[in-house]
Amino acid sequence: MEEREFQALLQQKTQAVEEIIKGYLPREEGAQKTVIEAMNYSFLVGGKRLRPLLMWETYRMFGGEDRIVEPFLAAIEMIHTYSLVHDDLPAMDNDEYRRGRLTTWKVYGEGMGVLAGDALLNYAFETMASALVREGNGSCPDCQGSAEKAADTLERTRTMARAMSVLAERAGIYGMIGGQTADVEAEERGTALDMERLLFIHEKKTAALIQAAMMIGAILAGADADAVKDMEKCAYNIGIAFQIQDDILDVVGDSKELGKSVGSDAQNSKQTYVTIKGLEQSARDVEALSLEAVELLQRLPGDHAFLEELIRTLIHRRK
Amino acid sequence: MEEREFQALLQQKTQAVEEIIKGYLPREEGAQKTVIEAMNYSFLVGGKRLRPLLMWETYRMFGGEDRIVEPFLAAIEMIHTYSLVHDDLPAMDNDEYRRGRLTTWKVYGEGMGVLAGDALLNYAFETMASALVREGNGSCPDCQGSAEKAADTLERTRTMARAMSVLAERAGIYGMIGGQTADVEAEERGTALDMERLLFIHEKKTAALIQAAMMIGAILAGADADAVKDMEKCAYNIGIAFQIQDDILDVVGDSKELGKSVGSDAQNSKQTYVTIKGLEQSARDVEALSLEAVELLQRLPGDHAFLEELIRTLIHRRK
Repeated sequence: MEEREFQALLQQKTQAVEEIIKGYLPREEGAQKTVIEAMNYSFLVGGKRLRPLLMWETYRMFGGEDRIVEPFLAAIEMIHTYSLVHDDLPAMDNDEYRRGRLTTWKVYGEGMGVLAGDALLNYAFETMASALVREGNGSCPDCQGSAEKAADTLERTRTMARAMSVLAERAGIYGMIGGQTADVEAEERGTALDMERLLFIHEKKTAALIQAAMMIGAILAGADADAVKDMEKCAYNIGIAFQIQDDILDVVGDSKELGKSVGSDAQNSKQTYVTIKGLEQSARDVEALSLEAVELLQRLPGDHAFLEELIRTLIHRRK
Repeated sequence: MEEREFQALLQQKTQAVEEIIKGYLPREEGAQKTVIEAMNYSFLVGGKRLRPLLMWETYRMFGGEDRIVEPFLAAIEMIHTYSLVHDDLPAMDNDEYRRGRLTTWKVYGEGMGVLAGDALLNYAFETMASALVREGNGSCPDCQGSAEKAADTLERTRTMARAMSVLAERAGIYGMIGGQTADVEAEERGTALDMERLLFIHEKKTAALIQAAMMIGAILAGADADAVKDMEKCAYNIGIAFQIQDDILDVVGDSKELGKSVGSDAQNSKQTYVTIKGLEQSARDVEALSLEAVELLQRLPGDHAFLEELIRTLIHRRK
């Protein structure tokens, strides 16, 4: 796929995802209006919408073509957003800006920052649970009469329950929150990280939600257990390679392109993948991880040209 | 029911609930051990376990008698606990003690306090979602072959999805988080509350989770839509009466019995139900709300003697 064609497609697909997920935001009304404004502010600050994009593309690659995936696209982005809102709090990273705009707690106050994050996390599950209820009722109001319909509705309901369960697990203590815990502790203790702990943090804090995205895309499209495992592995590679590339850019990147200062890890004498393995080996590892991820896709049927290109772009980005 | 008999039953039932919900806590292991310790610390500090108790009793009243309710007992208490953990944070109420013990953030630090609350909220949904997946798979591995089994499993799966959806809604922006938002804003602005806003806060912040408890008990036991509505109304009355009684105790209570100082609302010139309606009318309202709640129960079949007594005790408590 040519670069120009890919960029046009990426823009088009990102816009389509944006339209869908925006449709799931709550209306800013009622005596609780402020927390809803704070949720929507955090959500609409934007970003690459990488997780819903990966979910959607994986879903399509496995032949998925209906709207069952839509509430999950919104839910995973809500969960990603809540994690940023809470990460930015004074009690955590104490960040005042994100993507060039004031962070949620800077605009709405610290208490509302806590509540807005809670609200986004809760609303992600509210969105999925109500989709599950609609699926169970709406698509089959008269299942009593038709065994075939009942089996079909049960199959879809089960599939959605599995997808929700995967998201809950990868977002929670055995996933993202687990990674944040290890990260917070490492910062507090100021002890040097070994490779094992560093990979634990990268896997849980970054790769886990990317895994959820691609696994859910596969599950909802009806892929078999082996294919879901392939996606789990593929997403692991993407997440880890993405993080190593981040560390590399902190050493060799151009601060103008990155939009942030470089060399900050060294200044904070922070232990990273690059400080442990060296620049050259790190670059080789990114290459190997990315190659393996692409190979996993190539073994599968369906159209994965865009997904492959997306992975290459993500991992070889210079900003 | 005699007072002594009720107290013995209450203790026995609370212990049984305690055993069940403790069984759902995650094990304290792995590189994320600290956040799990913080979750379990918050959860095990205790309390009356009122919400799971109400859920269980309602479930039994409607004839429920299997273990389908158990993950929901744990989930609602996890959600109640997370709300306390985040409420206690310096960014919110800045409380250092709860039930005579240090609050979670005082023991584990502020960052871990945020994460432990997030973890409890996420784990509540993780627990329900995985129960839903188990129900869908385990009870019916061979539904393909049996139309009857498929319809039955679908019915149970639907019921659990509805229960989860109710909890998500009552805990979120249209429930508890909505009430907390209005409460935080009222505190920050320092403007006097009118009765409408005050009732909004009491309904959402307190009654909403009690409603979830009793509605879910009814739903899981297979009660019809009218009965679920009756429970919603009954729980509304319990929640509001409980809060008014709180305000009354702040004026007339014995600080020794309460274990906290009285008159704090007046000292903070805080607008409460009692300051707006006066002591006598407030007491009459508690009486009327409680009577109506009990009457709602009495119209229903099943054994509700314990539940009635529980409501009377809650509302007429002196501490």
